[in-house]
Amino acid sequence: MAYLTAKARKFPVSRLKAFASERTAGTELLFNDAKVKVEVPDGRSWNGVDFGLFSAGASMSLQWAPVAVESGTVVVDNSSAFRMDNNVPLVVPEVNPHAIFDNNGSPYKLISNPNCSTIQMVVALKPLHDEFKIRKIIVSTYQSVTGKGKKGLEALESEMRNEPQASFTHFKPIAYNIVPQVDAFLENGYTKEEMKMVNETRKIFEDDSISVSPTTVRVPVYGGHSESIYVEFEKNVDIKKVMLLLHSFPGLIVQDDPSSQIYPVPIDCYGKDEVFVGRVRMDLEHPKAINMWVVADNLRKGAATNAVQILEKIIEKVNS
Amino acid sequence: MAYLTAKARKFPVSRLKAFASERTAGTELLFNDAKVKVEVPDGRSWNGVDFGLFSAGASMSLQWAPVAVESGTVVVDNSSAFRMDNNVPLVVPEVNPHAIFDNNGSPYKLISNPNCSTIQMVVALKPLHDEFKIRKIIVSTYQSVTGKGKKGLEALESEMRNEPQASFTHFKPIAYNIVPQVDAFLENGYTKEEMKMVNETRKIFEDDSISVSPTTVRVPVYGGHSESIYVEFEKNVDIKKVMLLLHSFPGLIVQDDPSSQIYPVPIDCYGKDEVFVGRVRMDLEHPKAINMWVVADNLRKGAATNAVQILEKIIEKVNS
Repeated sequence: MAYLTAKARKFPVSRLKAFASERTAGTELLFNDAKVKVEVPDGRSWNGVDFGLFSAGASMSLQWAPVAVESGTVVVDNSSAFRMDNNVPLVVPEVNPHAIFDNNGSPYKLISNPNCSTIQMVVALKPLHDEFKIRKIIVSTYQSVTGKGKKGLEALESEMRNEPQASFTHFKPIAYNIVPQVDAFLENGYTKEEMKMVNETRKIFEDDSISVSPTTVRVPVYGGHSESIYVEFEKNVDIKKVMLLLHSFPGLIVQDDPSSQIYPVPIDCYGKDEVFVGRVRMDLEHPKAINMWVVADNLRKGAATNAVQILEKIIEKVNS
Repeated sequence: MAYLTAKARKFPVSRLKAFASERTAGTELLFNDAKVKVEVPDGRSWNGVDFGLFSAGASMSLQWAPVAVESGTVVVDNSSAFRMDNNVPLVVPEVNPHAIFDNNGSPYKLISNPNCSTIQMVVALKPLHDEFKIRKIIVSTYQSVTGKGKKGLEALESEMRNEPQASFTHFKPIAYNIVPQVDAFLENGYTKEEMKMVNETRKIFEDDSISVSPTTVRVPVYGGHSESIYVEFEKNVDIKKVMLLLHSFPGLIVQDDPSSQIYPVPIDCYGKDEVFVGRVRMDLEHPKAINMWVVADNLRKGAATNAVQILEKIIEKVNS
């Protein structure tokens, strides 16, 4: 039996329904100590449902999100299906909360949750973008196996037990290895994951002039993505100002006293809702550039937490 | 009993002596099937010795390399002791073989072997630097635990067996983790390892105008360092020309057909003497910039192989 909980964030839920494909239907989940049976959705499943959180892949979202929206449900979709749709906002609540609502102040009926690697990067960069304006980002990632879900986790576990694998979930063996591929390659030599970091960052910052040069890499870590980020700004950078801005930004925790071994690492960030940043330092020569190290739990802030935060923003507005 | 072998490269050895501190003295090594006893060195140890390979840390090198040189031995030092000394060449044989010899064509008596992370990077970049001239390098590393030697290896092994560790060889737990620290921090917020990549790259390329922005990171891999490298050149880049140059450079093996999962990964490069490069692609916007992925066995090309190759260049010259 799997566990779901809304207690941690005190999110108000009067009734919860769980939907999945036929493969999973019939299993039971625990939510606030009560059992919830997983059902296969049909056209009437969303009648009377206020909020729908979709996280069952792009094809399920493409099929069912429009049905839910038609029934009056506000949908937050964690798949990539609608992220680059001009009519669908792509939201990280600390970064662009205004995008959740239309000109009348009503929430959009369909809102996309960005890719995990993008979310943690834009949270760390937003306060700096506002102050110094980003021109170029060069990012190399260190992504955990849970980016591929349960299958990704099981692949690392079975390889660690030395069980032979006919085909590799992470394209190559991942135990004691580093694989410079996350998702499929496109014709330009970049992966889909890398192009998500490019396109989603621009959409969230509403600035197509930002240049992003990404290399996304899978590492043998169970939970938590790390990112080595170089950023060039339009204005000269004052590192003290950078630290002040990072310290005061919501959802961001600065861990930065490297000579005392204080910097973020994935095993410390696992199970946390925030984005962690450290090793913030000026480029050795460029007065407009810095390097930084950003870590977050890819299943929480990189997925579930961000989606729930979007709903929290909507409830906050309705109650205000 | 540990093994040493010169068979793989057919290096001509008539007699081998092995020196170490008192901690190791008395142990036996196997070299070409014969036993070699490890001795503590004294002032006469290097009498009649043609070549000395030093790899026992900076303090041993500082103490004994001058004694060996005084005895007429040509020393190749793998420690950081003399690397930035203006009177000592820093050599990667594929990159700057000329630096081994003085104006009279005689080999210098003391030659430094660069840092492992630097060696593999400059091998991959040298043919491109010659053609397009490098302006800026932004590099993030994925370094194996053997960078910290036997202790580094044992730390990962014992953590994988869940044995508690009082202090961490890699500063933080390394099993299932990513640690953005290799060696100690300096006042500028960069580590010693990072500054080696900056300073050694400039010395080897004999070009102090090259800007290097490094982030060095330890990963739970037994052998083989990986590097995600962004390079900006002075001239516009032709990617076809880049591939031709990489393909024809000695010591470099191109593995680059990513949609067929052909790119270098550390477990494939383990035990190999070459540097492997893949995922070579233009920056998405900058016509003078590329991204690439470089992997090498840090104990072979990153250390032992490079040192032996320096001696091979000397022997080649003597015999020519």
